[in-house]
Amino acid sequence: MPGPQAGSILVVGGTHGNEPNAPWLLQQWQRQPDGLQHHGFALQLVVGNPAALAVGRRYIERDLNRSFAEALLADSQRQSLEVRRARELLQAHGAQGASPALVAIDLHSTTAAMGNSLVVYGRRPADLALAAGIQQRLGLPVYLHEADQAQQGFLVERWPCGLVIEVGPVPQGLLHAGIGRQSQLALEAALAVLHQAASGSLRLPPALVVHRHLGSVDLPRHGDGTPSALLHPRLLGLDWAPLRPADPVFLSAEGHPTALAAVLPERLQGEPCLWPVFVNEAAYGEKGIAFSLTRRERWPLTDTALAALRGLAQGLTRRQAA
Amino acid sequence: MPGPQAGSILVVGGTHGNEPNAPWLLQQWQRQPDGLQHHGFALQLVVGNPAALAVGRRYIERDLNRSFAEALLADSQRQSLEVRRARELLQAHGAQGASPALVAIDLHSTTAAMGNSLVVYGRRPADLALAAGIQQRLGLPVYLHEADQAQQGFLVERWPCGLVIEVGPVPQGLLHAGIGRQSQLALEAALAVLHQAASGSLRLPPALVVHRHLGSVDLPRHGDGTPSALLHPRLLGLDWAPLRPADPVFLSAEGHPTALAAVLPERLQGEPCLWPVFVNEAAYGEKGIAFSLTRRERWPLTDTALAALRGLAQGLTRRQAA
Repeated sequence: MPGPQAGSILVVGGTHGNEPNAPWLLQQWQRQPDGLQHHGFALQLVVGNPAALAVGRRYIERDLNRSFAEALLADSQRQSLEVRRARELLQAHGAQGASPALVAIDLHSTTAAMGNSLVVYGRRPADLALAAGIQQRLGLPVYLHEADQAQQGFLVERWPCGLVIEVGPVPQGLLHAGIGRQSQLALEAALAVLHQAASGSLRLPPALVVHRHLGSVDLPRHGDGTPSALLHPRLLGLDWAPLRPADPVFLSAEGHPTALAAVLPERLQGEPCLWPVFVNEAAYGEKGIAFSLTRRERWPLTDTALAALRGLAQGLTRRQAA
Repeated sequence: MPGPQAGSILVVGGTHGNEPNAPWLLQQWQRQPDGLQHHGFALQLVVGNPAALAVGRRYIERDLNRSFAEALLADSQRQSLEVRRARELLQAHGAQGASPALVAIDLHSTTAAMGNSLVVYGRRPADLALAAGIQQRLGLPVYLHEADQAQQGFLVERWPCGLVIEVGPVPQGLLHAGIGRQSQLALEAALAVLHQAASGSLRLPPALVVHRHLGSVDLPRHGDGTPSALLHPRLLGLDWAPLRPADPVFLSAEGHPTALAAVLPERLQGEPCLWPVFVNEAAYGEKGIAFSLTRRERWPLTDTALAALRGLAQGLTRRQAA
């Protein structure tokens, strides 16, 4: 029986209103709950930004998935549609909300060739254990996002445990059966890991392979802000693949290539190899990000991580078996 | 020397504000006119919908590329931003405008796997001759759009000669060097054909291969409008490829396929083979178009077509050679 902290699992789609595949899946599962292998967990299937979804835009006033910073939520002067929606989601589904959820899985898509992948924010032990469990099942690559002052306030950070399932490439605004299928497979893997964690049968691999965020690179631009070069065709589609300083990353209108070494921030000069992610994500143009750079690292998993996930999972509500 | 009807060539990009590759090319050519092989023609490089481009949306109030119907332009009650912009473009660059253009080339991109292709509206002889000249040089497929009451009022129809260069797949809102390169190649081929037509050296092939529009098919939907199935993965990417009645076109959430025969309009039942185009164009969801169907036809080219293009091309202004 669930204890006093019993809670559900929040599954969010449409945090960005121009990523319609996850909202479409949520609708199908609401019609046919057994279309998703849910292990009896109480799931809350929620559209993150319904107003933006209705008009097919990423957001109305500001990016909802940058609107969960605590200072922003606490600032009563901040009343944009998305900050209000963030508060509403927390009041309804937060760990201390009306229908408390202990784990948040946020389903996203991208125009970048990320394949089926996970994004984890920071180094919370339960997040790392959940990511490791999914990686063990499906081999998904993990983008560990941290220490980026320009990109803060992600939804899943406000729940005790959570991660993003990020699938691409798919254009914005486009339904695509394959993208939906991959999203569902990753979500079902997450639920299976939580099920094992709750029952005490989860065993984790000795280490988690992460791609740790080190920084981002914008397109070269003229003085007026117009891009003077675009991503080099040889970089497109090569998310997660090793990139070396001499490799071309940009191509000018006149056909001149620019090598990675020429655009690396000073603190990354000397790195023999980096791994790009989110190469040409359409929504990141306005954020000044043509691609992000990571380092592939192998992080040993501690018993603390497994224990943290177990503790959380034991607090999850399970429906009575029929 | 150009005669009294001398005019220029209008090259439009950004008729849809979420197709940024052509506007980016226009900017590069404005900086570096010789970055485009222009054969000395006077070109007018114009952003179709600057307001929509600024916010990265297809349009603000209505699709500019459905706003050029004569009845719409003549109706003084119709004052949406796009109808006003259509009138403005015609006043500035129309054949009777302030800076008259005789030929309009409208550069588009699509999320569908159309490759590098041409769209021609109706059967104007000069359009067919221009398309044939480009097809002869680059082998591009031609989508001949006509007789569709639901889709009317395309920009190029209001110029004496014109066509769309349509390149994909590329997500909306995304700069992509390869898409730009293909657009430029097709535009340069068009200019080379016009150059030959003006000098009298143009020879056309005996026939033009067109894919003639026969109708469009929407996704199957539940009563509330939600799609009950998505495009079948086996159809994705197969624009221009033969599609037979037994071939699957949709896949339901439960994994059930639907064959083409089950969704064909009655008047197309019995067709042994059709050729789909614009398969999963993101912008066509709101138009109720999951894909369009065409028939591949070989149209003999008449002397009239060549003569019509020659007559027009001789009216084009050429800059003096340096």
